[in-house]
Amino acid sequence: MTKVYQLKNVPSNEVDLPVVLTIAGSDSSGGAGIEADLKTFSAFGVYGMTCITALTAQNTKGVKTFEKTSSELIKQVLNANLDDFLYNYTGTAPLKVIKTGMLTKEAIKEFSYQLPKLKEHKVKIVIDPVMVSTSGSKLIDEEGMSLCVDHLIKDVFLITPNYPEAQELYNIKEGKEYEEVQSLEDFKNLAKSLQQSLQCKNILVKGGHIPFDANNNVATSNSSKIIDVLYQSELDDWVIFESEFIDSKDNHGSGCTLASAIAANLAKGKELDDSIILSIDFIHKGMSTLQRKLGFGNGPLNHFAKPAASISSVLNGSYNEVKKLLSQHDSFYHFLTTHPSVKDNWTKYVNHPFVKAIAENTLQFDKFLYFLKQDYHYLINYAQIHGLAASTAPNYKQTHAQATIIGEIVTEIEKHKEKLMKNYNIDYVKDYEIDSGLKPGKACQDYCDYLLRIGKKENFLGIKVAVAPCLHGYAEAGTYGQSIRKDTEVLGVVTEDQAKIYQTWLDDYTSDWYTNADKEGKNALESLINDNELNIKRVDELVDMFNQVVLLEIEFWNECLNL
Amino acid sequence: MTKVYQLKNVPSNEVDLPVVLTIAGSDSSGGAGIEADLKTFSAFGVYGMTCITALTAQNTKGVKTFEKTSSELIKQVLNANLDDFLYNYTGTAPLKVIKTGMLTKEAIKEFSYQLPKLKEHKVKIVIDPVMVSTSGSKLIDEEGMSLCVDHLIKDVFLITPNYPEAQELYNIKEGKEYEEVQSLEDFKNLAKSLQQSLQCKNILVKGGHIPFDANNNVATSNSSKIIDVLYQSELDDWVIFESEFIDSKDNHGSGCTLASAIAANLAKGKELDDSIILSIDFIHKGMSTLQRKLGFGNGPLNHFAKPAASISSVLNGSYNEVKKLLSQHDSFYHFLTTHPSVKDNWTKYVNHPFVKAIAENTLQFDKFLYFLKQDYHYLINYAQIHGLAASTAPNYKQTHAQATIIGEIVTEIEKHKEKLMKNYNIDYVKDYEIDSGLKPGKACQDYCDYLLRIGKKENFLGIKVAVAPCLHGYAEAGTYGQSIRKDTEVLGVVTEDQAKIYQTWLDDYTSDWYTNADKEGKNALESLINDNELNIKRVDELVDMFNQVVLLEIEFWNECLNL
Repeated sequence: MTKVYQLKNVPSNEVDLPVVLTIAGSDSSGGAGIEADLKTFSAFGVYGMTCITALTAQNTKGVKTFEKTSSELIKQVLNANLDDFLYNYTGTAPLKVIKTGMLTKEAIKEFSYQLPKLKEHKVKIVIDPVMVSTSGSKLIDEEGMSLCVDHLIKDVFLITPNYPEAQELYNIKEGKEYEEVQSLEDFKNLAKSLQQSLQCKNILVKGGHIPFDANNNVATSNSSKIIDVLYQSELDDWVIFESEFIDSKDNHGSGCTLASAIAANLAKGKELDDSIILSIDFIHKGMSTLQRKLGFGNGPLNHFAKPAASISSVLNGSYNEVKKLLSQHDSFYHFLTTHPSVKDNWTKYVNHPFVKAIAENTLQFDKFLYFLKQDYHYLINYAQIHGLAASTAPNYKQTHAQATIIGEIVTEIEKHKEKLMKNYNIDYVKDYEIDSGLKPGKACQDYCDYLLRIGKKENFLGIKVAVAPCLHGYAEAGTYGQSIRKDTEVLGVVTEDQAKIYQTWLDDYTSDWYTNADKEGKNALESLINDNELNIKRVDELVDMFNQVVLLEIEFWNECLNL
Repeated sequence: MTKVYQLKNVPSNEVDLPVVLTIAGSDSSGGAGIEADLKTFSAFGVYGMTCITALTAQNTKGVKTFEKTSSELIKQVLNANLDDFLYNYTGTAPLKVIKTGMLTKEAIKEFSYQLPKLKEHKVKIVIDPVMVSTSGSKLIDEEGMSLCVDHLIKDVFLITPNYPEAQELYNIKEGKEYEEVQSLEDFKNLAKSLQQSLQCKNILVKGGHIPFDANNNVATSNSSKIIDVLYQSELDDWVIFESEFIDSKDNHGSGCTLASAIAANLAKGKELDDSIILSIDFIHKGMSTLQRKLGFGNGPLNHFAKPAASISSVLNGSYNEVKKLLSQHDSFYHFLTTHPSVKDNWTKYVNHPFVKAIAENTLQFDKFLYFLKQDYHYLINYAQIHGLAASTAPNYKQTHAQATIIGEIVTEIEKHKEKLMKNYNIDYVKDYEIDSGLKPGKACQDYCDYLLRIGKKENFLGIKVAVAPCLHGYAEAGTYGQSIRKDTEVLGVVTEDQAKIYQTWLDDYTSDWYTNADKEGKNALESLINDNELNIKRVDELVDMFNQVVLLEIEFWNECLNL
């Protein structure tokens, strides 16, 4: 028998992949080393290259043996990778970050030869000074660490020692023990002292070995939290990352994974503190989502945990800060539209030349028709987004409210179709509902795609903020248009009938019906803001989303004008 | 300055990870070898372990040099990995599949020593007989291939040669050239001959090197398709996979990636033909989704392309087969409810003892109250799912129809709340809308979770099939209940008032209002089926989804009965 399958070519999203090179050992069991690095890069959508410094035979119970890679091969690997992904590019190269794990003397030497050229190419280097594996095996000797300190660490972007490693590094460099950490203050001082000693740019000292209590002293009891301290030398600033202590045996390779998650996020262009937040969260999820532990010792974590969709979603706190910020504004809507990053865009949008041209009868009518067609596409999408809002609503009344809005949007669509459009011989069935007709333009498609993406990943508040510029902007644009409206008898490039159509359009968006919808929407947004305990990062995200949509609105009208 | 971030512990989905071991070379540039394997395993959510046979220094322009791993280390790696993830398990072990890529003589020997024990443990072995890299470098010599043929391939689950490799293997084994393939028939014969010669269980010969024309002859012009042929010896069956020829330079490591994608899907328990379909689709997406090529030679593909959510979505054709299948049924609804895998479950559901007990007045009233509470939770979720249906609807009228259904469900919710429940002193605010009250039971939660998952990943038709058992099943259950209804004066364990409530409940689901909704839903489903060109795999998926939901409905009532 012969069975035949014909595969379709299904389109998929295009991506531009940033690249990270990991220089580290291979962990045959897949939980640490370059294996953990590659899995972590994959989780964050970053392309990974490797320079394997040693092959280990190990499993979750320990390292059985290892073989070091020769200097010659390391040299060849570094040249092959760096030529093809960095040095030979004249424009922006794909390689953004180099991350190191287990290093041998051979690897340190070969890598250090590349440093001057790497500095020229502005690659960020993240060094995870691995000394001992989770299972207790020693992975580098003191001579290796000295080499590392003397040849590599100075000037690198970030090093990520845990507490024992930080102490060891201090000892190697300063030739004396650092006093034992008792409190958060001590811990911060250790981070700064170590940075000053090593001269790296930033240092993240991980506190997994010394849980703290609620008073920020090293914990003596069980109820404890983990603190990681980042010291940034250029700002002379500390950043404290507090998180819950996760009681889990799925922690093999957690150090490698944290450092490579940070490297991946840096390669994607994220700020250092955001990168660390996303990485700590990733480790937490990885350590608490395996239904069944793998292996008989300390097992690997789950590298397939989904990274947080946003920074704000993994952070507590700072509600008071937000309240203070918003208290200077009449409403959240006012805060958004007058925000420094939004204000000018908002004005450009609601006082758009397209609206001005309508109001002054100087808009060529075919551009208005094009706009109506685009708006038809947009409204269909806008209705669908409210379906997504309905599915994420916090209670059934809100779900119902979104369904009602869908009904209103459909009314608007049919109004377009039946009342306005039938006068201009546009056959919607012919034009849109079969493949031969007008397609949405780029501006419309970009806008719809953005809303759909937001709709799929955001919560109810996020979706409502993303649909807000359309609802409220049209009310403001209508008011603006009316305020500068020329008498319809003062005709520009349109006929008297066409001028009347323009008047109707302006009237629609200043009608009681629309003014009411605008007001209701603002009230609903305000209630939502009051019901959600926002942190500052969340406010930033909402502002950014609102701003993106405002830019898409401007582009929507630009496209019509520049037809 | 000190900034403090407090991280929350955000719950994430738990997973049980199947494991694949790859025995292959390392490609430092990250596009092929164990790097490609690990990235591919990650894309499919499978845990990867490694046994690195050689380290190569290579980039997209070629292999510069390589160093082989010693026999001793390979032995130790295999022992460490297999002990910890396979041999020492008494129950089901996590390691499911072993996949090989570039092999050295050392690796072949060490691996072959493990074969008897691996056979005992029923691990599937997939051998990708890598000989030459995409960039043209020879990766194994003839002696190595002979060893492979003599010691490894016999009895393995699958080998995946491309056309030149298939010919080379034939030559090695039979000592003579296989005639050149001119047609699909020749290609099928080659696959079968090679299987009989090598004695592996299944063989997939990849046709990337010999595109075919529309008449299934080797193409001489440009318009061509790719055919891969699977020969399954145990069934004496061929499976043909036809796909478009992708003109792309992003193909470094495509062979490794295909084999590891197949291995990953097998590890997840997928059938061989389904695994191959998903893998070919993955390669296609990977080869056509990089915005910017990586490296200066043939670049790696995009391993972060999202695998297809379903088999049916990547297949053309077989519409006639589906029409023939469905023509034996009055309606798609009839087809679903009488399908061999559904029929008994459907009867169990619509004639459920819970309904019987209501009809016969033998249901303890507290169980009925528990059911109403659970139903309240369920309906809120059911409304939200229709929001997702609205967002995926094929046109705005359907979007509107889903919004209308949300309105109807909300009416039903409020009816529950205000009419029925107020008589039993259940304070919904206290019970549900704050944290202290009754939570949804396991059956309700499982059902809601399933629907939400379906709602997020499925298209409109899929969602409508998933919500169908509830809508139509309650109509049938109501009719069933009425047909065996005892006179309310013949009381069982309930009071006369309570019996009246039971009567009202049965009346609701046999009312004109509900009968109408039931009928409209069936008509809508039928139209949808007629508007979609389904293939057989899609029909299978819809049946499976419908059946899953029927089982969840049964469990929903079981939980109430077994309170």
